[in-house]
Amino acid sequence: MKFNIALLAGDGIGPEVTEQAVKTLDAIADVYNHTFKFNKALVGACAIDETGDPLPEDTIKLCQESDAVLFGAIGHPKYDNDPSAKVRPEQGLLKLRKSLGLFCNIRPVKAYERLIENSPLKKEIISGTDISIYRELTGGIYFGDKHISEDGQVASDGCSYSVEEITRIAHLAFKEAQNRRKKLTLVDKANVLETSRLWRKTVTEIAKEYEDVELDFLFVDNAAMQMILNPSQFDVILTENLFGDIISDEASVIGGSIGLLASASIGSTVGMFEPIHGSFPQATGKNIANPLASILSAAMMLRHLDLHKEADAIEKAVEKSLELGITTGDINPKKPYSTTKVGDFIADYI
Amino acid sequence: MKFNIALLAGDGIGPEVTEQAVKTLDAIADVYNHTFKFNKALVGACAIDETGDPLPEDTIKLCQESDAVLFGAIGHPKYDNDPSAKVRPEQGLLKLRKSLGLFCNIRPVKAYERLIENSPLKKEIISGTDISIYRELTGGIYFGDKHISEDGQVASDGCSYSVEEITRIAHLAFKEAQNRRKKLTLVDKANVLETSRLWRKTVTEIAKEYEDVELDFLFVDNAAMQMILNPSQFDVILTENLFGDIISDEASVIGGSIGLLASASIGSTVGMFEPIHGSFPQATGKNIANPLASILSAAMMLRHLDLHKEADAIEKAVEKSLELGITTGDINPKKPYSTTKVGDFIADYI
Ligand SMILES: CC(C)[C@H](C(=O)O)[C@@H](O)C(=O)O
Ligand SMILES: CC(C)[C@H](C(=O)O)[C@@H](O)C(=O)O
Repeated sequence: MKFNIALLAGDGIGPEVTEQAVKTLDAIADVYNHTFKFNKALVGACAIDETGDPLPEDTIKLCQESDAVLFGAIGHPKYDNDPSAKVRPEQGLLKLRKSLGLFCNIRPVKAYERLIENSPLKKEIISGTDISIYRELTGGIYFGDKHISEDGQVASDGCSYSVEEITRIAHLAFKEAQNRRKKLTLVDKANVLETSRLWRKTVTEIAKEYEDVELDFLFVDNAAMQMILNPSQFDVILTENLFGDIISDEASVIGGSIGLLASASIGSTVGMFEPIHGSFPQATGKNIANPLASILSAAMMLRHLDLHKEADAIEKAVEKSLELGITTGDINPKKPYSTTKVGDFIADYI
Repeated sequence: MKFNIALLAGDGIGPEVTEQAVKTLDAIADVYNHTFKFNKALVGACAIDETGDPLPEDTIKLCQESDAVLFGAIGHPKYDNDPSAKVRPEQGLLKLRKSLGLFCNIRPVKAYERLIENSPLKKEIISGTDISIYRELTGGIYFGDKHISEDGQVASDGCSYSVEEITRIAHLAFKEAQNRRKKLTLVDKANVLETSRLWRKTVTEIAKEYEDVELDFLFVDNAAMQMILNPSQFDVILTENLFGDIISDEASVIGGSIGLLASASIGSTVGMFEPIHGSFPQATGKNIANPLASILSAAMMLRHLDLHKEADAIEKAVEKSLELGITTGDINPKKPYSTTKVGDFIADYI
């Protein structure tokens, strides 16, 4: 089969790791007789540098015409500490999510037995952890009205959610729970926020259609504690945009392997697949960044394109690299392999 | 000296643990020749049950006329899963914070060497952790306009901050940093939120008055990771209301001793002192709840009243109880002492 893949490598280590995912997909294409046509486009700080716009129209158009989007990372420190910057790389990412209707961000968090020693948490705490986080991605305070008073004295951000926005992602999360351990935890702050109360009410209503799924609720502050105290209690977590940002990043480090975590953003027809880690400016160009998360994002993409055998092949190759210790310094500080070497191994193995 | 202390024991285990703090303060009064006059008042679910109001006017008045407020905990499960409840215990707490002008919540998080084995994190990760979290407590999305559309389809919460609100707590946090390791970390989401950008700008400006303090910035999602990966990197953390809620609860479990963490809320003249843990409904009335956080809140209160010797005496007694293992089951599951026994020991020791 033939697929058009939009390649948005972005900033920092984005291009280096995405290159390994491309290498991997090329190997898959050879073995399984597919054609992946990769079309590059700009997003983030590099797009600002070249065009003044963190998300040029061409990029949106390319993505819309593609079968899937493979994303690297965005962000550059020169924008982070400049609160008055008018254009920021992140705007590109947010606009992309909105333009492509990617309202559902899925992050699997798993404690790989082989990496468990790398975790800051004790082995007995994380052992068996296998969570799927469903984060709403195109609503909430991220996309509310922003305002700063003329005298610069008062700033505000609006947060709103509609029943419709909650409903569409809730169904996806309940279905995921049905395919897993049949437990769904809604994370909110319903004791304080009106939007959270609407989440709780709507999700409670929808739960009636999924009687085999057990629904429970956790305030976000408590969830932040439980994630450390007892992460294996969670199956599927459903939450709004900002809480999802915080909780999923927190969850990502407990397995000891943030360099291995991939994510999918779906909603409309075209899905976007990306590593959880950011642009990691300090490592840029050094050939030391872990490409496995990007490679596993490619596997998630294949699964979304219904190429399950192919996705399995990538995941098996990743397991093998872990088993043999052919990994970058974040996992294997004593005998680190370079980014490209890890990519080569994965491609060869396939 | 003579002090009027408003006693707001609240719900769940609140009354049981507060009773031990009172016992402790009575012992202090004896030894150091003070008089503490305790005046009880209602707040939370118990206040709703008795008066229909989670914060009766009498309670506010009593607090305003007192030298300090000792607070237990609030919250009852019967309200949590009822998104349509018109009156909730939490409203009492939020209104109390606002009425008393308690804009600054201070939470010390320390890894007690003696309890380090109880932590879900590895010893080498948390060893040496000593953080002071400054959370803004009377602004942000907690107190913004809340709205639900007439047809119930759209809910919204407003979040706003003014330079003035940011400035007054920032000065307190910088001063705290000067008395400690001279590092201040502002936690925000300035890559997305307008309010966060105002925080970053204002705090950067104020930093010029505290040249001996090193200021850095962390996005809240990254902070949630760093808190687990390397908590000992933090000295003073400054953040807005909602992020402070999440990050401080997350931080509270890394030391392995949430039953020991106290907090102070200050701003206007009268301060309020309370344990970090909640009302813990499952343990209510069983005489098993850990009273040390409430007892240490009393110590924080004494320090705020400039009774440093007296505060030291309480802290020493707590250390002793840990050393001897005279603690409740959360710390010492093999040989648990009851809530009242721990309180008796502390009072006797003093
Ligand atoms: C870069 C930033 C805007 C983004 C977010 O907050 O959504 C990132 O943290 C993420 O989680 O993808
Ligand atoms: C009970 C709740 C409203 C409160 C808050 O969110 O502020 C609590 O979590 C806290 O941190 O004191």
